[in-house]
Amino acid sequence: MLLIVLELIGLAVFAASGALAAVRARLDLFGVVVLGLTTALGGGILRDVLLGIHPPTSLTTWTYLVVPVGAALGVFGFHPQVAKLRRAVLLADAVGLGLFTVSGTATALNTGVPAYTACLIGMTAGIGGGALRDLLLREIPLVLRREIYALAALAGAVVVVVGTRTGWPAALVAVVGATIVSAVRLVALWRQWNAPVAKGLER
Amino acid sequence: MLLIVLELIGLAVFAASGALAAVRARLDLFGVVVLGLTTALGGGILRDVLLGIHPPTSLTTWTYLVVPVGAALGVFGFHPQVAKLRRAVLLADAVGLGLFTVSGTATALNTGVPAYTACLIGMTAGIGGGALRDLLLREIPLVLRREIYALAALAGAVVVVVGTRTGWPAALVAVVGATIVSAVRLVALWRQWNAPVAKGLER
Amino acid sequence: MLLIVLELIGLAVFAASGALAAVRARLDLFGVVVLGLTTALGGGILRDVLLGIHPPTSLTTWTYLVVPVGAALGVFGFHPQVAKLRRAVLLADAVGLGLFTVSGTATALNTGVPAYTACLIGMTAGIGGGALRDLLLREIPLVLRREIYALAALAGAVVVVVGTRTGWPAALVAVVGATIVSAVRLVALWRQWNAPVAKGLER
Repeated sequence: MLLIVLELIGLAVFAASGALAAVRARLDLFGVVVLGLTTALGGGILRDVLLGIHPPTSLTTWTYLVVPVGAALGVFGFHPQVAKLRRAVLLADAVGLGLFTVSGTATALNTGVPAYTACLIGMTAGIGGGALRDLLLREIPLVLRREIYALAALAGAVVVVVGTRTGWPAALVAVVGATIVSAVRLVALWRQWNAPVAKGLER
Repeated sequence: MLLIVLELIGLAVFAASGALAAVRARLDLFGVVVLGLTTALGGGILRDVLLGIHPPTSLTTWTYLVVPVGAALGVFGFHPQVAKLRRAVLLADAVGLGLFTVSGTATALNTGVPAYTACLIGMTAGIGGGALRDLLLREIPLVLRREIYALAALAGAVVVVVGTRTGWPAALVAVVGATIVSAVRLVALWRQWNAPVAKGLER
Repeated sequence: MLLIVLELIGLAVFAASGALAAVRARLDLFGVVVLGLTTALGGGILRDVLLGIHPPTSLTTWTYLVVPVGAALGVFGFHPQVAKLRRAVLLADAVGLGLFTVSGTATALNTGVPAYTACLIGMTAGIGGGALRDLLLREIPLVLRREIYALAALAGAVVVVVGTRTGWPAALVAVVGATIVSAVRLVALWRQWNAPVAKGLER
């Protein structure tokens, strides 16, 4: 139950980040809603396409549609206020990243794929929505450039695999995995940790 | 029979729009053909990947290849003349949008997915090819920015779902759905209807 | 055995080309590795998604992960030296293109799809990784612009289909197909063959 609520919060936050980017790119109302939906559902759709789950779960669960659409409409109406909530958005985005990575990794493990495959698919589920958002807006995906983003997802996916294989209860695995992703991401933001850039190309 | 002819016209028109954009981006002959094919077949391929139809129908029906390649070659040879036919291209594009949305929604319904899933997948089938075209040419997809484009597709998808569920004959559903999409899109073009942009960002 | 070694070389080379492009775009260490992986595995993943092979083979074979990651890390550490090896990189890229096209076409044929479908999917497997690399870095895919690239892949795919259908041994088909792709590509580079650009738009 808690997990469902957290997952819906993650969907809302990802939708809001997509909608905010779309508003800034001057897309119209419908474009804002479509981009919000794509950002919220994109990671899960990629996960299901790779795993062969047809049609993707995100497209067959109506709450997965209503929540992101509502969040996108809210951003459209109140974008100056939302833009001011920068810290809250980053916090929520980190929580969403953790939740989607954990649920993606667990879903993949359930289909019986090898451990490292589950990690890769879980990571894709966590960062895929944001990558699609940036692609559609013609940006080099932030997830490839920003401080410790995909790496945080990878760390959480590894925890989920190890925890599941060593027999922890599923709920504990989920909570610990998601917490680790969010914590790594938030600490990286706070301390401005960055992965290194190649020699001779530092700014 | 009429529907097959209309669908081939839709393929030719979508291929022409992709080829024309590719010619303007100075792609070479082969790039023009590939982009024409991608624009024509992209929506149907996305639809089939989401629905789990392997391999996608578009890749296993030879007329679906020959017609777009022919259209792309025609555009390559006669692009100044095609560019002058701006009205005809927009008209044909609206017809293609209607046909692909309707056939996508009907295909999805046939696999037994929920109604709103069929709408989303039908809309994706209608606008997917144009979105891929713009992505490959490094543009923010026009379908997210242009006057009432994806919204027209959504309206037609809803009509197909409602019509099918209330027992109309399939041919009637297809004709009415496609007509509505094309009509909404053409009226929006003619009257320059646009969905609103967020406050404070109007041009 | 020889084919496996060649395939691993192809993966390493494609990963290196993605990593080199990522280093130049100033992505950080993790972004460089992700882009190297995407370039190396992207074509095979697209192939498997289109054919309905779940999860994609590239994600379930650990050597397919280790080799590209190693190549990307090598490029990250020694990119000035790698950039100097321009000829070697182009040569290896042509070999990789040939190998991925041939293995993609053969995989598709094995699933029983029609001949031209196998050609299209084989071509996608060959050029898909490079196209994803360019998309993520916000470039118009080079494979659509560069001298005889996709066309070389198409030629090799046709050879594989004809050879298989006329009963040649599989190993012979693979070697001849891959050699033709690489040779066409290298001769095109050497003689600077280009497909024509539409009239009135030559530079």
